[in-house]
Amino acid sequence: MNRGKFIVVEGLEGAGKSTAIAQISAYLQSQGIEFITTREPGGTPLAEQMRAIVKSETDEPLTTEAELLLMYAARAQLVENVIKPALEKGVWVIGDRHDLSSLAYQGGGRQLPETLLMPIRNAVLQGFEPDLTLLMDIDPKIGLQRAANRGELDRIERMELAFFERTRAVYLTHAKINPSIKIIDAGLSLEQVQGQISSVLTSWFNDVQ
Amino acid sequence: MNRGKFIVVEGLEGAGKSTAIAQISAYLQSQGIEFITTREPGGTPLAEQMRAIVKSETDEPLTTEAELLLMYAARAQLVENVIKPALEKGVWVIGDRHDLSSLAYQGGGRQLPETLLMPIRNAVLQGFEPDLTLLMDIDPKIGLQRAANRGELDRIERMELAFFERTRAVYLTHAKINPSIKIIDAGLSLEQVQGQISSVLTSWFNDVQ
Ligand SMILES: Nc1ncnc2c1ncn2[C@@H]1O[C@H](COP(=O)(O)OP(=O)(O)OP(=O)(O)O)[C@@H](O)[C@H]1O
Ligand SMILES: Nc1ncnc2c1ncn2[C@@H]1O[C@H](COP(=O)(O)OP(=O)(O)OP(=O)(O)O)[C@@H](O)[C@H]1O
Ligand SMILES: [Mg+2]
Ligand SMILES: [Mg+2]
Repeated sequence: MNRGKFIVVEGLEGAGKSTAIAQISAYLQSQGIEFITTREPGGTPLAEQMRAIVKSETDEPLTTEAELLLMYAARAQLVENVIKPALEKGVWVIGDRHDLSSLAYQGGGRQLPETLLMPIRNAVLQGFEPDLTLLMDIDPKIGLQRAANRGELDRIERMELAFFERTRAVYLTHAKINPSIKIIDAGLSLEQVQGQISSVLTSWFNDVQ
Repeated sequence: MNRGKFIVVEGLEGAGKSTAIAQISAYLQSQGIEFITTREPGGTPLAEQMRAIVKSETDEPLTTEAELLLMYAARAQLVENVIKPALEKGVWVIGDRHDLSSLAYQGGGRQLPETLLMPIRNAVLQGFEPDLTLLMDIDPKIGLQRAANRGELDRIERMELAFFERTRAVYLTHAKINPSIKIIDAGLSLEQVQGQISSVLTSWFNDVQ
């Protein structure tokens, strides 16, 4: 039996990740591929408790370092207890965010140094990485507007625009050097975005089959 | 106004940390010094949620890396939101465990490498350290026996003896190179232990006054 593939969708808030995942799910289904979806942070009972801490609206400020550590603690739980076991059984995994989010948000947005990020990342992931990443690239002004239309913004979504500009820049830097990250211009119309995803997905799929 | 002092009590389970803290508290009270006590992991609303995850008895295994990251996330919260603000107001802090526990348990017991521990530790603590540490040194067989007499053992307390032997060895290694860590022979009778604590405390107290 073949190992499953791990496809990740990344991007700023409101970029269209959930929408893209619906499309990818439909595509895998049409190909008769068994898959699960995950979201980060979260996805296991303990990781969801960590997510709740990261998202919680308390008077107590969450330090930048604690936020980073919680993100990776949750990721360690999800990778070891959900993602790797699925892939080993031949089940594919579609991830709503994964490690690139931490590199972009904690490294770019929060400006934590690589000397901290890299040892943690290497210890938690030990070389594990997605087979394909779709980076839904969007101007944060547009993405946040889309997210706001949907309802109240959370603790991270209320950050200043410069935070998201820095985050976006790190996303794009990684896409430039890592060929498994495909950039989707997510600022276009839904139809145009779906066209791009469809063509990336089918050509990649034909390569890996 | 003078900055408060940070006194930490360290040692294996059942070594007599809580008993020592009662004695130190009584001593500070007799000297008219205002103080608070903290325990790690925990001590803030968010850090207590992290403690609950570390201590939880679920079917989901907590990875060694996630445990480490949670410990430091909780420590970041406690140091920034409780310990430093107290010390700055001139209030002393007595800590039931602090950073040395992670170096000993995660580095020694769990055998996580220094290349992971040190960048996290340095990022979270940025040179912050206790003014005085009392290391309640005990043979783990004796300590665990004392803890067991008190009731059920938790997830960490049920580890094999070799885990605690490795933890104890790292504690002692740090005590050898760091003069602010004072070793108390905690395997002796309560009276003898209290005599040692009393003499360490009064001589240190006279030095720092
Ligand atoms: N190409 C598009 N053009 C216009 N609106 C879109 C487009 N794609 C998605 N949307 C809408 O924008 C909103 C955000 O999309 P979606 O929830 O897919 O983004 P997301 O990246 O998952 O957001 P979040 O980070 O908040 O989970 C939704 O209301 C969605 O219907
Ligand atoms: N010197 C001693 N001799 C014998 N028993 C002791 C001594 N010191 C403490 N004890 C007893 O051993 C038990 C453990 O002591 P204590 O709770 O102070 O340890 P601890 O290090 O705080 O443990 P834990 O790590 O579980 O919090 C208690 O029942 C206590 O009364
Ligand atoms: Mg979404
Ligand atoms: Mg105790």
